[in-house]
Amino acid sequence: MTAQSPPDEAFLYEQLATTISKLIDVGTLKPGDRLPSVRKLSKKRGVSISTVLQAYRHLEDCCLVEARPQSGFYVRPQVRNRPTEPQITAPPLAVTEVEVSDLVMKVLESVADPDVVPLGAAIPSPDLLPTARLNRVLASVARRAGPEINTYLLPQGYDPLRQEIARRALDWGCSLSRDDFIITCGCLQALSLCLRAVARAGDTIAVESPAYFGVLQLIESLHMKTLEIPTSPRDGIDVEALERCIEKEAVTACLVTPNFHNPLGSLMPEAHKKALVDLCARHQVPLIEDDLYGDLYFEPPRPKSLKAYDRDGNVLQCSSFSKTLAPGYRIGWVAPGRFAPEVRRAKLASTISTAAPLQMALAEFLRQGGYDRHLRTLRRAFANNLERMTQAVGEYFPEGTRATRPLGGFVLWVELPERVNALALFREAVKHRISIAPGPIFSSTGQYDQCIRLSGGHSWSDRIEQALQTLGRLAGRKTGGE
Amino acid sequence: MTAQSPPDEAFLYEQLATTISKLIDVGTLKPGDRLPSVRKLSKKRGVSISTVLQAYRHLEDCCLVEARPQSGFYVRPQVRNRPTEPQITAPPLAVTEVEVSDLVMKVLESVADPDVVPLGAAIPSPDLLPTARLNRVLASVARRAGPEINTYLLPQGYDPLRQEIARRALDWGCSLSRDDFIITCGCLQALSLCLRAVARAGDTIAVESPAYFGVLQLIESLHMKTLEIPTSPRDGIDVEALERCIEKEAVTACLVTPNFHNPLGSLMPEAHKKALVDLCARHQVPLIEDDLYGDLYFEPPRPKSLKAYDRDGNVLQCSSFSKTLAPGYRIGWVAPGRFAPEVRRAKLASTISTAAPLQMALAEFLRQGGYDRHLRTLRRAFANNLERMTQAVGEYFPEGTRATRPLGGFVLWVELPERVNALALFREAVKHRISIAPGPIFSSTGQYDQCIRLSGGHSWSDRIEQALQTLGRLAGRKTGGE
Repeated sequence: MTAQSPPDEAFLYEQLATTISKLIDVGTLKPGDRLPSVRKLSKKRGVSISTVLQAYRHLEDCCLVEARPQSGFYVRPQVRNRPTEPQITAPPLAVTEVEVSDLVMKVLESVADPDVVPLGAAIPSPDLLPTARLNRVLASVARRAGPEINTYLLPQGYDPLRQEIARRALDWGCSLSRDDFIITCGCLQALSLCLRAVARAGDTIAVESPAYFGVLQLIESLHMKTLEIPTSPRDGIDVEALERCIEKEAVTACLVTPNFHNPLGSLMPEAHKKALVDLCARHQVPLIEDDLYGDLYFEPPRPKSLKAYDRDGNVLQCSSFSKTLAPGYRIGWVAPGRFAPEVRRAKLASTISTAAPLQMALAEFLRQGGYDRHLRTLRRAFANNLERMTQAVGEYFPEGTRATRPLGGFVLWVELPERVNALALFREAVKHRISIAPGPIFSSTGQYDQCIRLSGGHSWSDRIEQALQTLGRLAGRKTGGE
Repeated sequence: MTAQSPPDEAFLYEQLATTISKLIDVGTLKPGDRLPSVRKLSKKRGVSISTVLQAYRHLEDCCLVEARPQSGFYVRPQVRNRPTEPQITAPPLAVTEVEVSDLVMKVLESVADPDVVPLGAAIPSPDLLPTARLNRVLASVARRAGPEINTYLLPQGYDPLRQEIARRALDWGCSLSRDDFIITCGCLQALSLCLRAVARAGDTIAVESPAYFGVLQLIESLHMKTLEIPTSPRDGIDVEALERCIEKEAVTACLVTPNFHNPLGSLMPEAHKKALVDLCARHQVPLIEDDLYGDLYFEPPRPKSLKAYDRDGNVLQCSSFSKTLAPGYRIGWVAPGRFAPEVRRAKLASTISTAAPLQMALAEFLRQGGYDRHLRTLRRAFANNLERMTQAVGEYFPEGTRATRPLGGFVLWVELPERVNALALFREAVKHRISIAPGPIFSSTGQYDQCIRLSGGHSWSDRIEQALQTLGRLAGRKTGGE
């Protein structure tokens, strides 16, 4: 294991990379322009050579610059045919019973086959994760553990793990203590406990449109109803539209993903977050936050959690390690605010507690350090994957295709031209051994039958590029009126 | 690790022990009688010396016989003051909203303190479990595993583990295949998924009275209602009373523990099981079976699962490894019969899947063999603990105290004389650093305020004996009209 770089340097290089990427964005640095030499910039900014090099390499990973041997770093040509972004969504504002499960099972089954190109499920590839180190920590915990590894923990979970999570909460803008957290079997269980704590069958839950299909299934399985709110692919849920709905309808709770929403990738501006938290507090509507992707920002700073704006415990923040470290462990958490007693009771009544050995292993992994370093590498990989994927969509997909431009996470939401049907494309793709997630599973009102979600969770490869080429061809055939 | 004894021998010694224990039971062998010499019995029955010795040692563990040095084995004096068994329960036959959670949390918190004598929670002590071997298997799985250890499994779980469970199902009288099982986060999640699959908020679930508090909490958290059915401490749920209820009330599902019910320890006669399964099938009422304690019988054969009588997939069998092997792992299963699609959907919507590393470790542990051998040792230990506990209750508790006589599991249900209040006794006991489970947490109709449940999950010790002496004294003071 290499030693972790000092936090200062990490901060400096990310800051530098951000500055340069902004200069490229606004056109101050144009395609073909040479970046200042490493030595020169190091002197000018008073940072080390290695910091500048790291910043340049990061920009290279993001496909913004390229290194030319013995010459230096140059701004890359802009993506040809970068697809337009989709518009804000416009779901029918109707309270709806949910029924997406059967379709979702089909998608999951298509993903489970290792011969299938896995663009369908939002799962980080194990080779992008420190699986070997995690396994070593688990083995060492198992070898050294006393009897406490084989007994029930209390519902709230293993204290040292809660402690580590509380420490990390500072990154999201929250000052929370160990006792503010309850460990869960993944983020989905956290969301489930929250829903069970604040709502009951027949109640209406306001969600983004589109919404993560797992959330829709969860609401379906609890016999609750959804109200889908218009959502911008860039800025997330439309807070004003939500406000109008809350004033008109009996909304029992809101469930929102402020940071790098799945499937849209949208990131709520901080002012919107504050407005949302205030709105829900004012109307006493519990606000369940899914912050599963919050650590996967491409440019610092780490966006804040809604919980950071919470004054009266009305926000229930949920997340997990499933997208960043340990999908196989099913370990997540919730900071349930004023609903702690209800959530703890729901946890006790669901699974009593979460498996002890894995909580102990994760706590030890975090304690040893290196997680932040891993996150930096992972974020770069995902940024690179999504950039490549966007280019491929621009190149191979039919004219009129739109795609989101996420600033974090690892999924891309693609809006196909009018005559393409996503379910038909899904079925065709399966025949070609490619898995994609068709738009309709992200809606309980039958929206998005022209949309698909593509996952950039696997390292870029020729196989993935070819799959996208095939998908583009299939979609093009559809537009041709097949 | 010692090699596992051949199954034949295990079978022979258990058979022999049963025969002798029956002879003691009916009085053919009286207290003080000398058992036949090991050599003589070995010759007479045509079994090995070691088989006879094992049978005698088993009877010794069960406190039925004692070894006298250089003399042989003698039938022990009967327990003085063996408490009478409680009567069949008579709950008010009313559909009830459930509210036991707050009290349960208090009990659990009292159990978590290591300085407290742990008679309150039905948890097997880690020192009675092969924790060290399990830890070694987990460490070895973690060291050797490939990337599949760190990715989501499908909701139904890890195939080799399902295979091992299917193999064991033969013991319960079931011929099931791998694909009939879904792995869950413990038995409670299995029950939760079943309830969500077959019922919804407001529906009525028929349960035994008393019922395991976890089940009552679960029903409470799903906003369903209970109907408590009279239950015999010896024979389990009163099937005729249940039939009358099903005919009168809208019962959506039954949730029953046929084998070594918690807290009663009752064991349904096989004919009752068949009648129950037929009744539910006839009325199309899904029958959820909690078979968590079925492997913990004190005398062979292993009692059958309700599922063994199931002809049309109406029984959803739930169990786990939490009481026999790995409480800390939270791994259970359900064989959901015709409700498989609904249960799988509920699993997907709850926690997606169960943690991969622990499923892999358990599958490997079972594959290596030795689990049955461990179960034999564990059963003997629990039989011994309960026998000692019964003796202590008979000795130390006030006149008029009744206690169940379980044939398996490891809990004792104690009915105190009329003027003792179980909640007051619980509070007093906590002050004396003793944890017990007060009767009212086992009822949603406020029954059993004179009852307590004692757990024999920890190895017998002076500390436990002293705790029971203290409890008896406290209960006696209460009867004295303190």
